[in-house]
Amino acid sequence: MSLLDLEKNELDQLAADVRARYDALKAKDLSLDLTRGKPSSEQLDFSNVLLALPGEGNYRDQTGADVRNYGNLAGIGDIRELWAEVLGVDHANVIAGDSSSLNIMFDLISYSYAFGNNDSERPWKDEEKVKWVCPVPGYDRHFTITEQFGFEMVQVPMLEDGPDVDAIEKLVQDPQVKGMWAVPIFGNPTGISYSSEAIERLATMETAAPDFRIVWDNAYAVHTLTNEFPDNPDVISIAAEKGHPNRFWYMSSTSKITFAGSGVSFFASSKENLNWYSQIAGVRGIGPNKVNQLAHARFFGDAEGVRATMRKHAASLAPKFEAVLEILNERLGEYNVATWTEPKGGYFISMDVIDGTADRVWELAKQAGITLTKAGASFPHGKDPRGRNIRLAPSLPPLDEVREAMDGVATCVLLAAFEKLGA
Amino acid sequence: MSLLDLEKNELDQLAADVRARYDALKAKDLSLDLTRGKPSSEQLDFSNVLLALPGEGNYRDQTGADVRNYGNLAGIGDIRELWAEVLGVDHANVIAGDSSSLNIMFDLISYSYAFGNNDSERPWKDEEKVKWVCPVPGYDRHFTITEQFGFEMVQVPMLEDGPDVDAIEKLVQDPQVKGMWAVPIFGNPTGISYSSEAIERLATMETAAPDFRIVWDNAYAVHTLTNEFPDNPDVISIAAEKGHPNRFWYMSSTSKITFAGSGVSFFASSKENLNWYSQIAGVRGIGPNKVNQLAHARFFGDAEGVRATMRKHAASLAPKFEAVLEILNERLGEYNVATWTEPKGGYFISMDVIDGTADRVWELAKQAGITLTKAGASFPHGKDPRGRNIRLAPSLPPLDEVREAMDGVATCVLLAAFEKLGA
Repeated sequence: MSLLDLEKNELDQLAADVRARYDALKAKDLSLDLTRGKPSSEQLDFSNVLLALPGEGNYRDQTGADVRNYGNLAGIGDIRELWAEVLGVDHANVIAGDSSSLNIMFDLISYSYAFGNNDSERPWKDEEKVKWVCPVPGYDRHFTITEQFGFEMVQVPMLEDGPDVDAIEKLVQDPQVKGMWAVPIFGNPTGISYSSEAIERLATMETAAPDFRIVWDNAYAVHTLTNEFPDNPDVISIAAEKGHPNRFWYMSSTSKITFAGSGVSFFASSKENLNWYSQIAGVRGIGPNKVNQLAHARFFGDAEGVRATMRKHAASLAPKFEAVLEILNERLGEYNVATWTEPKGGYFISMDVIDGTADRVWELAKQAGITLTKAGASFPHGKDPRGRNIRLAPSLPPLDEVREAMDGVATCVLLAAFEKLGA
Repeated sequence: MSLLDLEKNELDQLAADVRARYDALKAKDLSLDLTRGKPSSEQLDFSNVLLALPGEGNYRDQTGADVRNYGNLAGIGDIRELWAEVLGVDHANVIAGDSSSLNIMFDLISYSYAFGNNDSERPWKDEEKVKWVCPVPGYDRHFTITEQFGFEMVQVPMLEDGPDVDAIEKLVQDPQVKGMWAVPIFGNPTGISYSSEAIERLATMETAAPDFRIVWDNAYAVHTLTNEFPDNPDVISIAAEKGHPNRFWYMSSTSKITFAGSGVSFFASSKENLNWYSQIAGVRGIGPNKVNQLAHARFFGDAEGVRATMRKHAASLAPKFEAVLEILNERLGEYNVATWTEPKGGYFISMDVIDGTADRVWELAKQAGITLTKAGASFPHGKDPRGRNIRLAPSLPPLDEVREAMDGVATCVLLAAFEKLGA
């Protein structure tokens, strides 16, 4: 059934019901927040042992070096090797940084802009124009970086198994196209993972720009909502096999594994890419926080320790995601007013409402005390061309609040649809 | 007495003695290192409690916010207020970052280069040329940053009470001069502190460039070698009084207070400067490592806690500095072949040998198993125009090694002098 198929009087009756329901919602005077992909207190508690690590007397890495002192721009072997195993890449291709992989992404683009990267003919600042491929919907903070540098963001739709690679293969024939954002596993906000075929094509395609890079932000590499962990293809080896060893800037971090914002970030890439980055990073500073790296290595113990932690996260998060999907199905399933993703991992559910009503849904929710991420946030410049996408982030609030908020959101989606239909 | 005043036969006799001494030195097959300003193990041990802080169950800042989660780009109030008291500035003008203030300095210049700062007419990349005032000798890593961005580094000599401000006042009448490096207290490598008069003049002078900035790298704000702590003038207030509120980018960190490379960095400046920086830093990432900030706040307790730690450092470092000065006096004092600074704080002693012999001293020391910082390192591009400056860093080795190394260095200084005199 679709709302569009209803007779006028049926539609008006339903609209009156939803309006009554919305008035009741407003009367509750809620204050609920589904905006950002923050872990909950329960999840953060899983890593509380880390607050007292590495522990007094523990300050030597596996080589015996004193982590309390300066040095070692690449980070300590203990955590680089552990993380290389988690990602399934060679540890010689992994460096460990401070807490934020977003910081490294910004720096990679900033260094390319000011100085050019290791395959550039000139600094990107000296290009007439730099264009960047942006699969949409995508991660708002990615888009903000390329916006900051004035790049033209070229949108490409996310399909069922990754971005529209046909479109990308055409775009990269333009030498002004210098790069692409990607969240390859349990993508933000769709939850979609790139298929092996999509990955292989991205590694293989010829690009007009020799210094073209894919920022491979594997933020949700182990962030499953089920008992199964995703495959993380070793894009560094794949790209090397396909003749484009420097294609991927592979990013990862422990941000939603231990503590958000005080974990360890990782940058994996070809030796050439790492050398180029390290040369400039070595001008920017002496090295990363190695005490925190050692603390994390001790906390996890090994790659299985990472997975053990992630199983706890899955157990905490899965009921919230199930609640969102259950309520969306129950309240909206029969009316054909919205579609949504059903992710097996990650932090978000992406919902498309009737074209042009996303802003109104956001506004209605706001008035009812439910804060949603600004409609359009998952698109470059915050502008969704179809005005339909809303990113739902159920991780932070307790389960009962997720239920209450989503029930309210469903009411707002319906109300906005009725308004659009003039009912 | 000066070597130059000696009769030929006296000179030759002395030279023969020194050569014999150098041969004996080489025969010892030493492996000693006076290169970098790293704290010793003994010093690092003062903060070992920090390895287990903030401690399980401690994850709330003074506002009750959970430091384990995302957010708070300015850093937690607990450490900002504590550090504002240490520096004697208003805490509203201080933000707390990750571990490295050098990182922030690089970013400030990088952002100015790509986007312009809050007083720029255009990004610095679009200036025909950018010039930078470099008091010499100075901190090598400062110069490396301005070299990376291709700025022309204009050298100004360090005098007894700070840099040659007469020269600086003239230089800043050139609109291409966009900034200046400064280590105002116990400077690297001279140990010289800027006088109040020099500071006032730097705050007051009119500059042709509206976006001129002084990077006020107060790396040794509390790093005394005596019982007295230095005055740290509040340059933010002074500059505001003098009508140039945005003049100083004031940097500080706990790097040689707790652990080198895993402490907390601070950036103090006018609200306008902080807002400009934060706007771009907020694109670069979500916020600093707040767990580490809380750990440091708990470790210190208050500003007096910082001073208590610094008294321990002074007790550990002072004998090493005394040993260096004692040996230099004893071995070289009478020959007039070198001058050196006698710092009351900081990490370095700056020695000037006979013009043109610094490289040879370095080489002779190297051959005898004593590693010194490359001669010229304290000058832009690593080139000392007079070829005479050597930076001595006695903090890392144990006291007996400092003595042994310095005795060897004195021999090398004399030998290089004799070679230069043809003796």
